[in-house]
Amino acid sequence: MKIQMNLGPSSYDILVERGALAKAGELLNLNRKVFILTDSGVPKEYAKAVEEQSHEGFVYTIKQGEGSKSIATLNKVLEKMLEFGLSRKDAVVAVGGGVVGDLAGFAASIFMRGIDFYNIPTTLLSSVDSSIGGKTAINFGGVKNIVGAFYQPKKVLIDPDLLKTLPKRQITNGLAEAVKVSLTSDKELFEIFEKGNIEENLEEIIVRSLNVKKQVVEEDEKESGLRKVLNFGHTIGHGIEVTTNLYHGESVALGMLPMCSQEVRERLIRVLKTLDLYKAPKYNFEKISKAVSYDKKANKSSVSAVFVNQIGAFEIKETEIKELISKAKEVLI
Amino acid sequence: MKIQMNLGPSSYDILVERGALAKAGELLNLNRKVFILTDSGVPKEYAKAVEEQSHEGFVYTIKQGEGSKSIATLNKVLEKMLEFGLSRKDAVVAVGGGVVGDLAGFAASIFMRGIDFYNIPTTLLSSVDSSIGGKTAINFGGVKNIVGAFYQPKKVLIDPDLLKTLPKRQITNGLAEAVKVSLTSDKELFEIFEKGNIEENLEEIIVRSLNVKKQVVEEDEKESGLRKVLNFGHTIGHGIEVTTNLYHGESVALGMLPMCSQEVRERLIRVLKTLDLYKAPKYNFEKISKAVSYDKKANKSSVSAVFVNQIGAFEIKETEIKELISKAKEVLI
Repeated sequence: MKIQMNLGPSSYDILVERGALAKAGELLNLNRKVFILTDSGVPKEYAKAVEEQSHEGFVYTIKQGEGSKSIATLNKVLEKMLEFGLSRKDAVVAVGGGVVGDLAGFAASIFMRGIDFYNIPTTLLSSVDSSIGGKTAINFGGVKNIVGAFYQPKKVLIDPDLLKTLPKRQITNGLAEAVKVSLTSDKELFEIFEKGNIEENLEEIIVRSLNVKKQVVEEDEKESGLRKVLNFGHTIGHGIEVTTNLYHGESVALGMLPMCSQEVRERLIRVLKTLDLYKAPKYNFEKISKAVSYDKKANKSSVSAVFVNQIGAFEIKETEIKELISKAKEVLI
Repeated sequence: MKIQMNLGPSSYDILVERGALAKAGELLNLNRKVFILTDSGVPKEYAKAVEEQSHEGFVYTIKQGEGSKSIATLNKVLEKMLEFGLSRKDAVVAVGGGVVGDLAGFAASIFMRGIDFYNIPTTLLSSVDSSIGGKTAINFGGVKNIVGAFYQPKKVLIDPDLLKTLPKRQITNGLAEAVKVSLTSDKELFEIFEKGNIEENLEEIIVRSLNVKKQVVEEDEKESGLRKVLNFGHTIGHGIEVTTNLYHGESVALGMLPMCSQEVRERLIRVLKTLDLYKAPKYNFEKISKAVSYDKKANKSSVSAVFVNQIGAFEIKETEIKELISKAKEVLI
């Protein structure tokens, strides 16, 4: 299955194909020096498979986790790229989740003012979410994603077979983002979730999620407004994520609940229950409220928030944070 | 005088106007937070003038010199931008020469994945050369300009009055780049140099140089080939620059001599003499040869070199470095 991202001179394809990793040498241009970035949580054989299919490959492994999205790790990665002797005509390949993709993409974008970048996401979350959109970044000065670039990959390979070995919690974490796009933009995708049989529909779920994101990104490559729909569930979700131990997708799943109409919320709760995403962390609404209002060092009293009143449609409204928190208190268990 | 850079969505204007600095508040959108980067060699009042015309300005002064194009200084600049509370809607202004422009432009390109950037060059070299083209960068791991971005400013203000206070050597250093573009691409500009009266023709020299560069950059924004013409004189010139105490422009001036036909060289020598650019450093051709072949960590035996056989026209040929050095030995005094 091929999804074509139409972004003028930055256009590229996303291939969703079982066994794609083993064919990376055919699907990508690896007939050059290839710098492969991966992390300690990714099975070693994935990066190795890319290395073996490269004319001259070099694997660099960073520590798993958000801590690696730092200027110190970026520095190290650029040093290794230089040592390896990468030239303008060579390429960088990310083999990992969102952290690896964000860091590798950013490094590729600034090395010699931009060299080719390929992304091979190995988590469901990065497959449906961060692999598409061209947003690369590191965290800096305590602020998430504050330094980065809009930089499109030359190609993205999504191999659903790689997802098989993921722990179940990693899968449901990724599914939460797919549920999110279904609620705002794809009624039929939501119905797939309602029917169950997730595993057997995984490829379709990935492709449908990517297609929603494709349309949004194509219309708003540099994130000037329309992309806000992708933030559905992220406002309160972000507050939950930084005040509990839940994963990103898990937090977004709960963050969607206060943003729906009663009817949608009831259907959403049923789906979240099936997916084991209807968690009940210890909420501290005061801390959540602080996290929501303190965004990129700015202290806000209102945010532009996304609401879903009917499945497959959405509304964006500037809303008082107080109001959002009070709704959250009401609907979160 | 306005030069329009036509680069699709990245289009912008370069204004060449006496007194432009004092009108920056009208000519640029400074009605927001404005982060002003300058260096210790630039008269303080220039940055101050921008600050005073800003809704909320902040001046950050880095140390003068190439040493500031480092990841450590970049880090510091990003920290200050964050502390100052710059948002996506705010702007960065460079007030200085090439180092300040390169660093400020790169910082603006990666902060929040790109915020508005204005350039106010204060040297002749940066006015005719680095202010146009969108190449921003820092040095890294001992390699010049290896980390950076193609990032176009929103506007460039060139105020020829700022150049009046420059030491004469700084002026001639900048004129060398103008002589360079005249040789490859603007016969009439070369004739202005032959006639003398540089000071009174300074504005025309700047505008004509920018017009040549404009055409090259418009046709090749991301430097895929055509831009090579701008490297005229830079191959041997680079070798001279890193092995002597000469400035960049001074080195390029000498670096052009081996790349011309006999007839062109004779006319060029006369012009360089008038401009006090016909210097006689102690050449060490062995070191020059090494510097030329060791480019961005690659060890080359040949380079794509630009030759001028008639004034206003050029030729690009892959040439053995040995051959270039032997020609340099013959014509450099």
